[in-house]
Amino acid sequence: MSEAAVERRSRLTPEREAELYTSTLDLLREVGYEALTMDSLATRSRCSKATLYRQWGGKAELVARALRHQKPVHAADIDTGSLRGDFHAMLTVEDDSRLARDFALMRGLAMAMHANPDLLRAFRELMVEPERRGLDVVLRRAVDRGEVRADNPALGYLMHMLVGAFVTRAVIEDRPPTVAYLTSYLDAVILPVLGVGPADDGPPAG
Amino acid sequence: MSEAAVERRSRLTPEREAELYTSTLDLLREVGYEALTMDSLATRSRCSKATLYRQWGGKAELVARALRHQKPVHAADIDTGSLRGDFHAMLTVEDDSRLARDFALMRGLAMAMHANPDLLRAFRELMVEPERRGLDVVLRRAVDRGEVRADNPALGYLMHMLVGAFVTRAVIEDRPPTVAYLTSYLDAVILPVLGVGPADDGPPAG
Repeated sequence: MSEAAVERRSRLTPEREAELYTSTLDLLREVGYEALTMDSLATRSRCSKATLYRQWGGKAELVARALRHQKPVHAADIDTGSLRGDFHAMLTVEDDSRLARDFALMRGLAMAMHANPDLLRAFRELMVEPERRGLDVVLRRAVDRGEVRADNPALGYLMHMLVGAFVTRAVIEDRPPTVAYLTSYLDAVILPVLGVGPADDGPPAG
Repeated sequence: MSEAAVERRSRLTPEREAELYTSTLDLLREVGYEALTMDSLATRSRCSKATLYRQWGGKAELVARALRHQKPVHAADIDTGSLRGDFHAMLTVEDDSRLARDFALMRGLAMAMHANPDLLRAFRELMVEPERRGLDVVLRRAVDRGEVRADNPALGYLMHMLVGAFVTRAVIEDRPPTVAYLTSYLDAVILPVLGVGPADDGPPAG
């Protein structure tokens, strides 16, 4: 996104921007990506179509920004003093109904990305990349504290592990991801592979 | 699947069955799941539609069995004497063009599963579950050899990790999975979390 686009968007109040993102996701859940139009969104949000295009450039960017905006917390804003605490803090703001709803939405969008390369690109640039950078901040702090070795090769696969845990449960277990499942995955896979042991345990035997 | 269905299928020679699976996947790649019909498949494979229905019951089961049949090797058949060796043996039979082709096919099928619950069910029963049972055999041997602790909580998430590695790269890195990527993921994430250290290394420091 250009500097000019940042400046143009800044003319909306944060409240108005939040309203627009909520309308976008509501409409997306109701009709799906293909049927979502800037016209219907303009009507729903009581905003001119010209404003929507001027502020976001298009449907793909607006949807990706709405997804990022609705995340209850961003990784980089969390700093509990330990990596285990940071990861668990990311999960405590979630709840199962929210996760199930997000999962259904993401499954629909994954299909839309297949047919709309501009959506895939916007999703990667405006949702995946900022999350990855946020996660890098959290991990760098853990390395600086000496919790994780700087050369741990799993550091390069954190996003794959997190996204993988979220997307694979439905096909493998026929259930959407829940807070209990993600917490268990975190404690069984993600923290151990980073060398962060159980909270109440010493180093593994053997 | 009923015992009777197993018996009925056994009337086809393995060669004829393999031909039918190849025709099914060829046609699937050409037209996609929705447009694939038992009629077109009967024509392609020079087989009566009645035979196809009698042998497989329907399109979803036929596609799921074709997918499983084309896997170059099944986990349970591999027994190299070490878990590291077994996992690497699963990857050495793959190549990048095959992985890219499989990935494109699976992405299309994942979309079809969303609209066709019978395909999701057949895929889970005839593809995911047998693979999971095969993997359990490999893991049980590793536990019996003392390579992996029987109470390692990551044992319950092996399928999630493997499937996750395969499906997440495209959205995170904009590249399909390759043999080099899967090998790196195996060495960086899967073997370490099972407590199997690098081939040439001692226990981690600290």
